Amino acid sequence: MAVYTDVAAEELASFLADYDVGELLAYKGIAEGVENSNYLVHSSRGYYFLTLYERRVAEPDLPFFLGLMEHLASRGINCPQPVKSKAGTTVGRLAGRPAAIVTFLDGMSIRRPNVAHCAALGVALARLHLAGADFPMRRDNALSVAGWRQLYEGCRKRIDEVQRDLGALVAAELETLERNWPRGLPQGVIHADLFPDNVFFLGDKLSGLIDFYFACIDTLGYDIAICLNAWCFEQDHSYNVTKGGALLANYAKTRPLSPLEWEKLPLLARGAALRFLLTRLVDWFDVPPGALVRPKDPLEYVRKLRFHQKVRSARDYGVIEP
Amino acid sequence: MAVYTDVAAEELASFLADYDVGELLAYKGIAEGVENSNYLVHSSRGYYFLTLYERRVAEPDLPFFLGLMEHLASRGINCPQPVKSKAGTTVGRLAGRPAAIVTFLDGMSIRRPNVAHCAALGVALARLHLAGADFPMRRDNALSVAGWRQLYEGCRKRIDEVQRDLGALVAAELETLERNWPRGLPQGVIHADLFPDNVFFLGDKLSGLIDFYFACIDTLGYDIAICLNAWCFEQDHSYNVTKGGALLANYAKTRPLSPLEWEKLPLLARGAALRFLLTRLVDWFDVPPGALVRPKDPLEYVRKLRFHQKVRSARDYGVIEP
Repeated sequence: MAVYTDVAAEELASFLADYDVGELLAYKGIAEGVENSNYLVHSSRGYYFLTLYERRVAEPDLPFFLGLMEHLASRGINCPQPVKSKAGTTVGRLAGRPAAIVTFLDGMSIRRPNVAHCAALGVALARLHLAGADFPMRRDNALSVAGWRQLYEGCRKRIDEVQRDLGALVAAELETLERNWPRGLPQGVIHADLFPDNVFFLGDKLSGLIDFYFACIDTLGYDIAICLNAWCFEQDHSYNVTKGGALLANYAKTRPLSPLEWEKLPLLARGAALRFLLTRLVDWFDVPPGALVRPKDPLEYVRKLRFHQKVRSARDYGVIEP
Repeated sequence: MAVYTDVAAEELASFLADYDVGELLAYKGIAEGVENSNYLVHSSRGYYFLTLYERRVAEPDLPFFLGLMEHLASRGINCPQPVKSKAGTTVGRLAGRPAAIVTFLDGMSIRRPNVAHCAALGVALARLHLAGADFPMRRDNALSVAGWRQLYEGCRKRIDEVQRDLGALVAAELETLERNWPRGLPQGVIHADLFPDNVFFLGDKLSGLIDFYFACIDTLGYDIAICLNAWCFEQDHSYNVTKGGALLANYAKTRPLSPLEWEKLPLLARGAALRFLLTRLVDWFDVPPGALVRPKDPLEYVRKLRFHQKVRSARDYGVIEP
């Protein structure tokens, strides 16, 4: 939760002059997002969301992310929409950083999703996958199976500091997944980070999706697997079959899964658990001493991984697959 | 720049139900202010500013601060206006903290004020003093002469770590000011922290004043002295007589100063410099090792203090007093 890059009123006003958004009236740095600097901007034309991309977002990827948001919005997905400059571009430069303005999206994220929220998420995720089907740009997923070994190598020496024998567990799991990772499943645009923070609700109604900065082209089922991990475990890390069943059934009503997709779901879920375990481990060891930001607990994903390892079929996730 | 207290959507919605502000649509934590947690709230009735008061603001003082903002707004001063609950109160409770909603104020603070900004500030400060004249509540200034010795004692042992012989300079100055601090000058509501961050402009026009959480009843000239320190020195800490003259002349056009107020201005300016020097020293030694927040440089105010010590009369501030 931080604003990394400070923007002066004068430079913001001159940046905005390239857009058709009227006159700058106010702006506030938003304590949200750990990757970028975000500002809420009030102009005589309304409220906007301004993002300055910090070093963790690669500038060459921005046209993919912003183009995707535009594409999805045009297909009826409620997500922030890039505002084009008078020259027709979506990426500008402000305070030495790549920067973009998007529309301000109402809605609030839910801390503790219930069954109805999981059901709504299932529908929204399937709609997102369908809406992305004809998006023409490509971006590989650096955080899928091909990228995990490098993450593991980066923290291998210290991994057992977090939990005894964790290194052995991760090494074995990594080998299993590298050997058995499913190929040939339906691919397309995936969000790849659709945690509850990134899904807005108004009352009980899912009102929008945000933060497409991990989006890429990958196995659609992997996106479902990420959501099962992120939405269907309780605070005590126990899996809730009612929530999982609601998510999966509502997804499948909108985009039916093939028998092979159902079959491979447990493996995809193990992969998703390993992916977040690994990135959390990296962040865990990356924290400078005395930092105010506490990294998220990697052990949460060890417990989730252990659950998925015991799953025999998608049925164990709470759905009666065809 | 932080949000200290996290607020869940559900608890915010239930807090807002006590107010006539419609339905909650969105809220964002604002990276602004070092004392409190601030949120921008969008409801079906508009945009509001929500503050949760953290430990540095004393709860018994809140009726003074909020009552003052209401009073000033009713006298034509553009400042955030407290929104009353259905029960008619301005202070509520949210996430275990005292909390208040105020109207959202457009405008932006200026990083490097020019002469025109200083002139506008002079008028606004005088108007604030006039508008506060009939405000019936009282709050003593804990950060005026009576409070300085305690601040000094708190950092006395380490003060020379900051600069050689700084302890001797501060001790001597403190004694001089305690002995000669002017009594009997016009008193009233003062803002007491009217730095450029707390003054909004739209274009070149001063559009509003914010952050009344140091406001109190004290010598009006002391508020002018604070502004001279905060607005009329350059980046290299040299005093700019044109800016100071513009501030003072425009203040005096709106509220004329008595001969005694002019005479005592240099002493008040020394006091104001010492006050910020002392609180910055306290903050300087108070920083936990490894903290991300860098405290403001106390030495800036040593240089300002040394300037004021050499001033012979208000004339040296750039104004031809009567």
